Amino acid sequence: MSRFFSRNFAALTPYTPGEQPQDKQYIKLNTNESPFPPSPRAQAMATKAAAHLELYPDPTCRALRERLGALHGLTADEVIVTNGSDEVLSFAFMAYGDNGVMFPDITYGFYRVFAQLYRLPYTEVPLKEDFTIAIEDYKGRQETVFIANPNAPTGKALSRAEIRQVLENNRDNVVVVDEAYVDFGAESAVPLVKEYDNLLVVQTFSKSRSMAGARLGYAFGNAAIIADLETIKYSTNPYNVNRLTLLLGEATVEAEDYYQSKCAAIRATRNWTAKALESLGFEVLPSDANFLFARSPQVSGETMYTALKKKGILVRHFTNPKISDFNRITIGTPEQMEVFITKVKEVLYENL
Amino acid sequence: MSRFFSRNFAALTPYTPGEQPQDKQYIKLNTNESPFPPSPRAQAMATKAAAHLELYPDPTCRALRERLGALHGLTADEVIVTNGSDEVLSFAFMAYGDNGVMFPDITYGFYRVFAQLYRLPYTEVPLKEDFTIAIEDYKGRQETVFIANPNAPTGKALSRAEIRQVLENNRDNVVVVDEAYVDFGAESAVPLVKEYDNLLVVQTFSKSRSMAGARLGYAFGNAAIIADLETIKYSTNPYNVNRLTLLLGEATVEAEDYYQSKCAAIRATRNWTAKALESLGFEVLPSDANFLFARSPQVSGETMYTALKKKGILVRHFTNPKISDFNRITIGTPEQMEVFITKVKEVLYENL
Repeated sequence: MSRFFSRNFAALTPYTPGEQPQDKQYIKLNTNESPFPPSPRAQAMATKAAAHLELYPDPTCRALRERLGALHGLTADEVIVTNGSDEVLSFAFMAYGDNGVMFPDITYGFYRVFAQLYRLPYTEVPLKEDFTIAIEDYKGRQETVFIANPNAPTGKALSRAEIRQVLENNRDNVVVVDEAYVDFGAESAVPLVKEYDNLLVVQTFSKSRSMAGARLGYAFGNAAIIADLETIKYSTNPYNVNRLTLLLGEATVEAEDYYQSKCAAIRATRNWTAKALESLGFEVLPSDANFLFARSPQVSGETMYTALKKKGILVRHFTNPKISDFNRITIGTPEQMEVFITKVKEVLYENL
Repeated sequence: MSRFFSRNFAALTPYTPGEQPQDKQYIKLNTNESPFPPSPRAQAMATKAAAHLELYPDPTCRALRERLGALHGLTADEVIVTNGSDEVLSFAFMAYGDNGVMFPDITYGFYRVFAQLYRLPYTEVPLKEDFTIAIEDYKGRQETVFIANPNAPTGKALSRAEIRQVLENNRDNVVVVDEAYVDFGAESAVPLVKEYDNLLVVQTFSKSRSMAGARLGYAFGNAAIIADLETIKYSTNPYNVNRLTLLLGEATVEAEDYYQSKCAAIRATRNWTAKALESLGFEVLPSDANFLFARSPQVSGETMYTALKKKGILVRHFTNPKISDFNRITIGTPEQMEVFITKVKEVLYENL
């Protein structure tokens, strides 16, 4: 830290992204990436996009916003496009933090960082015993609500009816539903955008759309909400999404069948992996995401994480004591998950 | 604006980027883009980069930071890489705004927006009569200094000795030197990074490196300054630069000869264009950038801008009364500038 650094941020604990070690080849099951490449059409677009990189991208991102809106019967004015979904989440914390923010105590770790960054009062609402979100606790408050659905790292989802209940209970606060993992089995809240002026639904190309490397997030909300977020965007980074990513995003929206088939494959592999872990004695939370959250009664979460890493497999372990028994395991290809289960068996055997 | 929008931002006037009209083909001389494509090597890299877009980029951007540092005898710890240089400027306003900020009254319009966005007290220091930066006014203050060098939209540059003077006069404040246009003729302050712990030098791939469309900015400073900015980065958007842009950036650093030859071509075209405008009676400020700032004694800046736009040529006009007589004209190819001069002659003739 320099002697000049703002007192506001000196004590800040930044977000810790999942490891991206460069030392050797791992089977990477730690950052919820897709094991599949982008669609052939999207990949082919990269070469075309590189031809005019000397020109700025369209700051309005209009073509992509129109296509994303059209998927759900919404207009471009009801869509914002950002440099990954973290950026639109950041904008939402800035735009709607005046009365404070609230979110589950076990959820995407970045919410707490954003609250601290923008010096917003925040409430961490405990999950229930079974790791579900206690929607009755998001009632009679005035803070802006952030809910990941499915939640991370648990993988558990609320139904659309439950999200509707949260919206009804917060008519005068914004409710942000972060659907990074929604395509793997949960019900989306997007159909509620037309009904609720207090709803922002955040999605991403990083998971089901195989584009974590291209950085592309987006969100749906009514036109007034989107206009707020555009004001923040044009005051921080108007050209926030590059030309390559915009064109790849457009090609991706047009390859819906390709991605639906990959999501179905991941669901099938997830179910196979969950059963395999359960047959080894693991407790596995029911997941609607592209990862499993599981704990062994025999081996601590940290021991399992460390032993698997030595064997060339990365999973994600969290030190928060409420969940430190668990590991979060991204669903890879069937072949990768077979290797994973073999290595888990080895670890269990070594710790008998 | 929604009924939920933060009172902090409700009155904010966002930055207005240069027009990017989609209605017809213009000769675009309005946003200081390069008229040349990226190097063939960089373009070829796009296809390779698209092959693993399902994986997150390296959040540390280490390979690119090492290469950028090596250009100037600096280490990776003295370099930060961002989603365009606007992002690192944004981080610097956050990190070093506690005592307020100061910058010229005529300069990159985003500085004022950042100051307002983060609610920092700010001082706009008048340029001298001849549109040079009055460095003696940046003395005995305690605000963080932001200086674009060459300045925009004037194109006028301070010498390295003058920048050193500003650093000497502000030993206890950070001085940010924004060198977006430095490769077109000005002296860089990068050699001063090792001497001054209060210096941050911001550069970009958007101008001389033909990559406005890829969004890639960076900055040099001592390791403590860079650590501050990394803290902000990891608290807003850890994966801020995508895989495609990182790889293209690395290829660009390796194609130095290609870009130096393009900068030389732009300087030659700039000198030709300046002489042609002067022979038509224009006052043209001496420029070390890839644009000219010029006014006609016969035709107002706005009339010239509007008439040229009708003729298919976009230049940038600013409404600030101190400079509303001028237009900022990006240097394109020789062919584009010949068309530009022909159209300027037509406008002068039509307004006789």
